[in-house]
Amino acid sequence: MTARPANSHQARILKLLRDEGPTSRALLGELVDLSRSKLAVEVDRLMETGLVVSDGLAASRGGRRSHNVRLAPGLRFLGIDIGATSADVAVTNAELEVLGHLSQPIDVREGPVAVFEQVLAMADKLKAAGLAEAFDGAGVGIPGPVRFPEGVPVAPPIMPGWDNFPVREALSQDLGCPVMVDNDVNLMALGEQHAGVARSVGDFLCVKIGTGIGCGIVVGGAVHHGVTGSAGDIGHIQVDPNGHPCACGNSGCLEAHFSGAALARDALAAVESGHAGELADRLAASGTLTAADVAAAAAAGDALAIDLIREGGGLVGQVIASLVSFFNPGLVVVGGGVTGVGHGLLAAIRTQVYRRSLPLATGNLPIVLSELGTQAGVIGAARLITDRVFSPA
Amino acid sequence: MTARPANSHQARILKLLRDEGPTSRALLGELVDLSRSKLAVEVDRLMETGLVVSDGLAASRGGRRSHNVRLAPGLRFLGIDIGATSADVAVTNAELEVLGHLSQPIDVREGPVAVFEQVLAMADKLKAAGLAEAFDGAGVGIPGPVRFPEGVPVAPPIMPGWDNFPVREALSQDLGCPVMVDNDVNLMALGEQHAGVARSVGDFLCVKIGTGIGCGIVVGGAVHHGVTGSAGDIGHIQVDPNGHPCACGNSGCLEAHFSGAALARDALAAVESGHAGELADRLAASGTLTAADVAAAAAAGDALAIDLIREGGGLVGQVIASLVSFFNPGLVVVGGGVTGVGHGLLAAIRTQVYRRSLPLATGNLPIVLSELGTQAGVIGAARLITDRVFSPA
Repeated sequence: MTARPANSHQARILKLLRDEGPTSRALLGELVDLSRSKLAVEVDRLMETGLVVSDGLAASRGGRRSHNVRLAPGLRFLGIDIGATSADVAVTNAELEVLGHLSQPIDVREGPVAVFEQVLAMADKLKAAGLAEAFDGAGVGIPGPVRFPEGVPVAPPIMPGWDNFPVREALSQDLGCPVMVDNDVNLMALGEQHAGVARSVGDFLCVKIGTGIGCGIVVGGAVHHGVTGSAGDIGHIQVDPNGHPCACGNSGCLEAHFSGAALARDALAAVESGHAGELADRLAASGTLTAADVAAAAAAGDALAIDLIREGGGLVGQVIASLVSFFNPGLVVVGGGVTGVGHGLLAAIRTQVYRRSLPLATGNLPIVLSELGTQAGVIGAARLITDRVFSPA
Repeated sequence: MTARPANSHQARILKLLRDEGPTSRALLGELVDLSRSKLAVEVDRLMETGLVVSDGLAASRGGRRSHNVRLAPGLRFLGIDIGATSADVAVTNAELEVLGHLSQPIDVREGPVAVFEQVLAMADKLKAAGLAEAFDGAGVGIPGPVRFPEGVPVAPPIMPGWDNFPVREALSQDLGCPVMVDNDVNLMALGEQHAGVARSVGDFLCVKIGTGIGCGIVVGGAVHHGVTGSAGDIGHIQVDPNGHPCACGNSGCLEAHFSGAALARDALAAVESGHAGELADRLAASGTLTAADVAAAAAAGDALAIDLIREGGGLVGQVIASLVSFFNPGLVVVGGGVTGVGHGLLAAIRTQVYRRSLPLATGNLPIVLSELGTQAGVIGAARLITDRVFSPA
């Protein structure tokens, strides 16, 4: 059982060392606002627990050189990011650096038991590669609403068999360590906040476009879950009253019009109705079309693919424009599998937002692509569990 | 100069007494988690400053009867709520009970100097009626975005002359007391939280439908302002790409389709194009039609009026449905002048939200009309300034 901090000062020290890396005692004292002697007491106690170690002398800041401390380099956390069609599993150290990362296709519709069997096998592979002997905690993202902090999926629309499955308890037993569970998009937002484009931004939106569409909402530095854990579920906002039927039972939902699945469907329909070009060639070659094919075709200059992305991106932009007017964020990050289609998508989104939202809300508003890619989710998952284990028990 | 609390314990005591009224020392000690002796020290200091007074013996809770304390009954706060076409000014005590309330038509387009002249005259009237000798603080709501906490209007679209006017400083000099300024809808939300239907709700939306449309957003008990103070500006969310032109320069904005102004415009257009009935009679009688006429006609069973409200309410509901999916609030409060049209509006909004938003987000979601009416804004304004003056300087 990994030790836990005994009080809020120790918790702040641990989180600072996680976010800033090795730090001198002098600087740490300033950052947590503790006197030299009180800081020494807390750091010494953390060293006794094994969570913190000494790390040599810091660079001189003029006076006597201060000793560096850092989080124990042997701490290991597991970041698990379960998508509808793939799972990412990574091992990080306590500073949330990714030491190893596996990704493989899964089908979330097979249910939690089958999915976690595969995920645990991936974790074992990472262990077998020598990256960890045991885990000090694991964070898990799943592609549906989660009752937080209990870690139980609630009525996930695309995930039969997951409703009320005790993910947190079950995995905690299997892994022998504390586990926290959240929606995959919320963890992507945490990852971007920790190591990506959202560092130092307090209020931002993180829109993930993959098989479905979701939005992580960060308010004052913390994820906003909503009263039933479904905040950010923007995939079912209506964009066309006479639009495509959606799996949710309504019609014209955003993700019925633009998502990985919708993009593949529209590309297939266009080619079948006679559109020649790159996409038709790809269909002939492989017998199927995916969002990745549309991305590749667009990159190769295929007009149909470019149109599909521009049109769909415009719908996403229309929804984001409304959310920007409502929420007035400091940053919008766009990520997820479909962002492989690249800057055409971003341009379409930006056009809508800058045209539709109030100038006051968009004046200094960057709208950017995620730079972390699939690492955002696993880093966010590791961050979630360290937020927990670096808090007093 | 009214005294300010010296530390955070005193601040918590003052806010508790504001929110709960006279309270025994024993209960106060439990609520602020202070020992009997430490609490006694802080309460005695507050008594010395004159902010708190003794209020007799509390009812017995078994043991020795405890002494009640309360906020000084002579403290007076001014709540000012400036709308596009009317101003409300109220005097409250420190428990935010409204002791006197004046309302009069104004035109916000006359600019801040002319408007505040009228508002200050209203405050003088309340003084002359013996309700206050001086004010210990004033809260002000204005119908546009506010840079918070500086209290400066920013690019308010319907308010020529207000951009960057130093409302807080100017009024503070005129009134001789501390002043805080926020958007009128945010103050309505604070009022509902303090004394209305949102008591004890941490995350809720407060939609105000008056001359325009805005939304107060409360997250974890605090108003969310957004990075430039424009959060909640939902009046310019697009509801119809081919819709009415809006004052903002775009077309199809929500408030160009449903607001006090839009309702009056549509009623006039319908009558002028030949619709007979209650609305036509009212136009003939007074030469003009207002939202209040539509409300009265709907109440009298006029089919045209009922249709206008159902249609417009459906558009508001469509936008609220998106916001509910996004934000997953615990409550939606609908208020503002147009709510005079009553339950037909509420029914139209509810229909859209319960049909369009995810069941998980609407399962336990009440959508209700404000019960405070025009008092929500002035109580919220008084609450804003007491949050300030009951905090350490």
